[in-house]
Amino acid sequence: MLHTSESIETVVELFSSLPSIGRKTAQRLTYYLLKQPAETVDKFSSALLTMKKNIRFCSTCYNFTEKNPCPICSSEKRSRKVICVVEEPSDVLAIEKTNDFYGKYHVLHGAMNPLEGIGPNDLKIRELIMRITDEVDEVILALDPNVEGEVTTQYLSKLLKPLGVRVTRIARGVPIGSDLEFADEATLSRAIEGRISL
Amino acid sequence: MLHTSESIETVVELFSSLPSIGRKTAQRLTYYLLKQPAETVDKFSSALLTMKKNIRFCSTCYNFTEKNPCPICSSEKRSRKVICVVEEPSDVLAIEKTNDFYGKYHVLHGAMNPLEGIGPNDLKIRELIMRITDEVDEVILALDPNVEGEVTTQYLSKLLKPLGVRVTRIARGVPIGSDLEFADEATLSRAIEGRISL
Repeated sequence: MLHTSESIETVVELFSSLPSIGRKTAQRLTYYLLKQPAETVDKFSSALLTMKKNIRFCSTCYNFTEKNPCPICSSEKRSRKVICVVEEPSDVLAIEKTNDFYGKYHVLHGAMNPLEGIGPNDLKIRELIMRITDEVDEVILALDPNVEGEVTTQYLSKLLKPLGVRVTRIARGVPIGSDLEFADEATLSRAIEGRISL
Repeated sequence: MLHTSESIETVVELFSSLPSIGRKTAQRLTYYLLKQPAETVDKFSSALLTMKKNIRFCSTCYNFTEKNPCPICSSEKRSRKVICVVEEPSDVLAIEKTNDFYGKYHVLHGAMNPLEGIGPNDLKIRELIMRITDEVDEVILALDPNVEGEVTTQYLSKLLKPLGVRVTRIARGVPIGSDLEFADEATLSRAIEGRISL
């Protein structure tokens, strides 16, 4: 039996419950915080509460936001003609980092997964359909490149096309900076299939 | 400019400030917590405060503890004849996990580092000397196998030997399960130097 105190153990276990944090890292983080001044730990503790209290879903795009509608939805600089559909709020962050997209977003909060019983009604799909007005020219489907993302992409495509909007999907291919020889077969065959003329 | 909210950014930055947590992991942890029920975040927040409030240093060994003296120092099952000296509270945890040590500990809270101005008075060295009574037969120095640990080991050895106590250090050598050919030269030469008869 390890002589470790209960209140330390509680924090170690909470850190361990986070994704990609193993028991050893959780311990290191906990002991690091124990060595910090009380103010640092206070700041951490209250920042978590403040975040959880202040953050809600944007009623338009369903991204996390403090203000409703969110800064992207209310921005005049962002084109209303293009909506990029993603699975998670973190995907919005990833695309924003490219500085290449100037339209609006729509966060589904997941992807369809029949095996786990996640169907269209569990996602913000109805809310997406409601946003397709004459103003919208294109919907870009930017879902995860896996089975669930694929199923959802096909489903949305069938649903959106009859509404007279252009439906596109992001390209699947070999990632930049990677080695062609290490690319898996599925990725490579998508890359060949999606080749473009030079 | 990324359209991310301030209260999310604060949490991301606090996570990033922890050891071994990069910006990307910090973001993943933050978004994970955002998706959890409010109770989970509350629990996290209050566990940090409780830990910081309840944990102090044991006035004997200077390990983190909720009770003073700590469970190890007050345990009748642990031999008072041997004191194992370590740099950090996390080192106590590591040694306890071996289930091989039945003595007491002493946590120095660092190692001597002349370049950073950390001298003997910045460590719990005086407090260690005070613990060396007739009851103590052996002091095991289990400091980190680096320059600072080495300097501190030599310093403590000179200080402790005149007190009539046996002073030992933990073995340095090739780690179990590793490949000999990948061991660095310093480790290998220590391993040869510290060879034992069979």
